[in-house]
Amino acid sequence: MKDFLLHLAAVSAAQTLPRFRTQLSVDNKLAAEGQEAEASQFDPVTQADREAEKAIRKAIAERFAGDRILGEEFGVTNDGAANGWIIDPVDGTRAFISGVPLWGTLIGRHEGDCMVAGLMHQPFTGESYVATSQGAWLVRNGVETPLSTSDVTHLNRAKLLTTSPRIFSPDTQAPYDRLEAACRLPRYGCDCYAYALLAGGHIDLVAEAGLQTYDIAPLIPIIERAGGVVRTWDGGSAKDGGNVLAAANETLFEEAAKVLRG
Amino acid sequence: MKDFLLHLAAVSAAQTLPRFRTQLSVDNKLAAEGQEAEASQFDPVTQADREAEKAIRKAIAERFAGDRILGEEFGVTNDGAANGWIIDPVDGTRAFISGVPLWGTLIGRHEGDCMVAGLMHQPFTGESYVATSQGAWLVRNGVETPLSTSDVTHLNRAKLLTTSPRIFSPDTQAPYDRLEAACRLPRYGCDCYAYALLAGGHIDLVAEAGLQTYDIAPLIPIIERAGGVVRTWDGGSAKDGGNVLAAANETLFEEAAKVLRG
Repeated sequence: MKDFLLHLAAVSAAQTLPRFRTQLSVDNKLAAEGQEAEASQFDPVTQADREAEKAIRKAIAERFAGDRILGEEFGVTNDGAANGWIIDPVDGTRAFISGVPLWGTLIGRHEGDCMVAGLMHQPFTGESYVATSQGAWLVRNGVETPLSTSDVTHLNRAKLLTTSPRIFSPDTQAPYDRLEAACRLPRYGCDCYAYALLAGGHIDLVAEAGLQTYDIAPLIPIIERAGGVVRTWDGGSAKDGGNVLAAANETLFEEAAKVLRG
Repeated sequence: MKDFLLHLAAVSAAQTLPRFRTQLSVDNKLAAEGQEAEASQFDPVTQADREAEKAIRKAIAERFAGDRILGEEFGVTNDGAANGWIIDPVDGTRAFISGVPLWGTLIGRHEGDCMVAGLMHQPFTGESYVATSQGAWLVRNGVETPLSTSDVTHLNRAKLLTTSPRIFSPDTQAPYDRLEAACRLPRYGCDCYAYALLAGGHIDLVAEAGLQTYDIAPLIPIIERAGGVVRTWDGGSAKDGGNVLAAANETLFEEAAKVLRG
């Protein structure tokens, strides 16, 4: 499974990397609907997104014919199948169109409701964060390094990442602000890359709101096999998205969840 | 001069890269002073900072004996000399300790008061953004690509970067918020890397407050040779730091400066 996920990384990179830092014809969904795209609603869809998802779907169908596939761009295929794949071809499209190499290609495998393997691939930096039932690794330049979360258990020692302090709704802003105030060091702007840094032990917490299943499900095996915990803010499964909290360990998760609950 | 700057990139990378994503013994100035380090005041100083600046200073002294050198870590050497160097060995120390590969080594050369050459080096991604009197280039994997800013001239098409929406003081927060509201797409978390992306034409504006000279002076030649404009918010020289605005071109600079002035 690890080799197949790394194959999917190469397949998707062939579609995304040549389109990174070029003049993209950004296809703005809102503009297509005849609305003025306000900054807060900007939802770009790029050729990279579509071509990468097509290539990933093709590679999966060749090896796992009949599997369910849910992708951000093209919806659900083989909806009745129990086992399948969840794909976000370019998570962090805004990073992508800004030249920031912190977007990633996310691919997760589920058996029934359980996420059993996952990949986060960043082709510009050449990093593949990959997890199977056997463990979790960063693969870069052919070198495999096991992933292991930090042993930070107190919020006042914790480094917290989120995509932006402006992703929160009126309901989630105050809880997030409490958490940020309790942590040692907040940073912004990482999308899926934040969860990879958590798995690598470089940061300790990620808090986000309003995620879709394809934003987070593929990352669950990576975080968990590295020793971390990822759930919704109220402690439920993160697989379907929503407000998500990831922590380096159970103790830190509980500390952070307590602050979010108020 | 370009070859010498790339030599300095290699010299500094030998000190910074092996210490990136390892367990650092972070030497917190505030903690050393017996104060509790609050998140907003966190100012880590790492071995990477100190060893890189030492190595850069040594390499400069071998080639340009007697030049003035101002570095973030070790202050001023040869203060009387007209020509010299401004060094920030690790700009974006918070990114560095969070594993985020958007920090950079900044080295600028001045002749008198004029910044004539500059380097921003990110060793994990292998990028050197370099400028001399001859032009500005991204050098990566031995390939030189000329840098050129975007032709975006309207704020409602502009992508804006800043390190964090929380770096602003009571005086600068409202102007920044106005600018962000006028732009198409804001992003956070880039430190010096934001100016490199501007020079590369991937984003259009950078606004920051409270910079030191070593945070910005080395970047001035890179931005200007790429076609961009970088000044203080009120239009003065950015060389000594302060509140800094960088734009892809003169028209966009004036548009943004107008919004900042209110």
